[in-house]
Amino acid sequence: MTKQDLLYEGKAKRIYRTEEADTLWVEYKDEATAFNGEKKDTLLGKAKLNNEISSHLFMRLAEQGIPSHFIRRLSDTEQLVKQVTIIPLEVVVRNVVAGSMAKRLGIQEGTALPRPIVEFYYKDDALGDPLITEDHIGLLEAASQDEVETLKEMALAVNEQLSELFDGINVRLIDFKLEFGRLKEGTILLADEISPDTCRLWDKDTNQRLDKDLFRRNIGNLQEGYQEILNRLITT
Amino acid sequence: MTKQDLLYEGKAKRIYRTEEADTLWVEYKDEATAFNGEKKDTLLGKAKLNNEISSHLFMRLAEQGIPSHFIRRLSDTEQLVKQVTIIPLEVVVRNVVAGSMAKRLGIQEGTALPRPIVEFYYKDDALGDPLITEDHIGLLEAASQDEVETLKEMALAVNEQLSELFDGINVRLIDFKLEFGRLKEGTILLADEISPDTCRLWDKDTNQRLDKDLFRRNIGNLQEGYQEILNRLITT
Ligand SMILES: Nc1ncnc2c1ncn2[C@@H]1O[C@H](COP(=O)(O)OP(=O)(O)OP(=O)(O)O)[C@@H](O)[C@H]1O
Ligand SMILES: Nc1ncnc2c1ncn2[C@@H]1O[C@H](COP(=O)(O)OP(=O)(O)OP(=O)(O)O)[C@@H](O)[C@H]1O
Ligand SMILES: [Mg+2]
Ligand SMILES: [Mg+2]
Repeated sequence: MTKQDLLYEGKAKRIYRTEEADTLWVEYKDEATAFNGEKKDTLLGKAKLNNEISSHLFMRLAEQGIPSHFIRRLSDTEQLVKQVTIIPLEVVVRNVVAGSMAKRLGIQEGTALPRPIVEFYYKDDALGDPLITEDHIGLLEAASQDEVETLKEMALAVNEQLSELFDGINVRLIDFKLEFGRLKEGTILLADEISPDTCRLWDKDTNQRLDKDLFRRNIGNLQEGYQEILNRLITT
Repeated sequence: MTKQDLLYEGKAKRIYRTEEADTLWVEYKDEATAFNGEKKDTLLGKAKLNNEISSHLFMRLAEQGIPSHFIRRLSDTEQLVKQVTIIPLEVVVRNVVAGSMAKRLGIQEGTALPRPIVEFYYKDDALGDPLITEDHIGLLEAASQDEVETLKEMALAVNEQLSELFDGINVRLIDFKLEFGRLKEGTILLADEISPDTCRLWDKDTNQRLDKDLFRRNIGNLQEGYQEILNRLITT
């Protein structure tokens, strides 16, 4: 398999074509951005950490019967994935109130939810990825009603698996963002990445942040937090 | 019936107790505010216009079997209503994309919706009345799931009646905001007001705005627009 032309460069990853149609080459970047790109920095080693964590999590999910775009890890910072048409929704699952939800609803960060909540944000940087309702999803033709049901079910299944996995390494899975895509025939696959860039992960004993809030809020060394997550993951 | 002590002063109305428990005295104010109170002005005659329009609409809805808090008009600027415990939700019905929905979703103002959409905003000035999902409503304990269903049904029923009524006076009902409250035994009643302060009303031929956008956007004389609505309503 060889890397061909650049298909898309995002804030965190570069996506290349390969000689195989429907197979993409993903290269993680040593870049961190927050607040819709307003804050950004180069953080050496982040690409490797996210590539390894994301690969690991996609493999563990596959073992539990949750399909994703992940094919295999190629190098420290690269992986091979199935090409999908990304559904323009950020599917957020929350177990504990934090971040934008704490702000929106005026609820103290750290408040446990009685049950997990799924939210949909419209993936549109120019609009600032706004929270939307299921009616808005239909109106925007982002996904069909059946697909929305599938997204919610899959997101909650991912939450169950990941919550258990992180619990086993003494980490609370506070919330996370997923992206999904469609294969040509319509099957929905989990796509993009699952990493401390896209999850909130708090140490269960100390509440220490081990995720991108280290960068967003300038409260510690991002690479140390991500390395801690990786170390704990690969030793279970 | 006599006006007793002031219970609540809002941006648009003063609410007084009466000697009768469960009956309130509402006094409309000549004040206009927008953008969560950032823009405000005194507009002579607005109190009378909104009191008359709101009284008229509540009566017309009652004729169509839609119950509200409205008891009777008392004077040019006052009315008597049943006291309810306000459900802290702004229930918005939209027939055509405008205002915050156009901004949120990046859709051109004036785009007709394939079917009416109901949205819920959390009534909290400090939080800026944010859009919320049905899960958030449960979490905030703003309303039960059954009540949410009732609110949606009642809001859509109001929309059917008002759309027909405005259509009959050559006005397009673009969107509107409702508030609901609970009587002591739990019955849900339509409450607050229905006026050009809380509806978007466009002339069907000219698209001329006949609602609070005249004030919000500085695009014309508010009182003239409201007077036009009142004139057309009382001559049908
Ligand atoms: N399997 C896949 N097939 C096609 N596109 C994918 C796949 N997985 C992820 N992508 C897309 O590739 C891009 C990944 O880059 P990155 O995470 O850097 O994007 P981003 O800066 O977050 O920007 P965006 O707002 O587009 O998500 C995203 O647009 C993501 O949706
Ligand atoms: N029947 C009723 N019983 C009790 N309260 C009512 C009733 N009808 C309306 N209210 C409440 O009275 C107040 C009316 O005042 P006004 O419209 O001026 O409020 P406002 O400035 O919009 O502020 P708020 O953010 O509290 O709605 C509102 O809080 C409204 O919810
Ligand atoms: Mg991304
Ligand atoms: Mg009001």
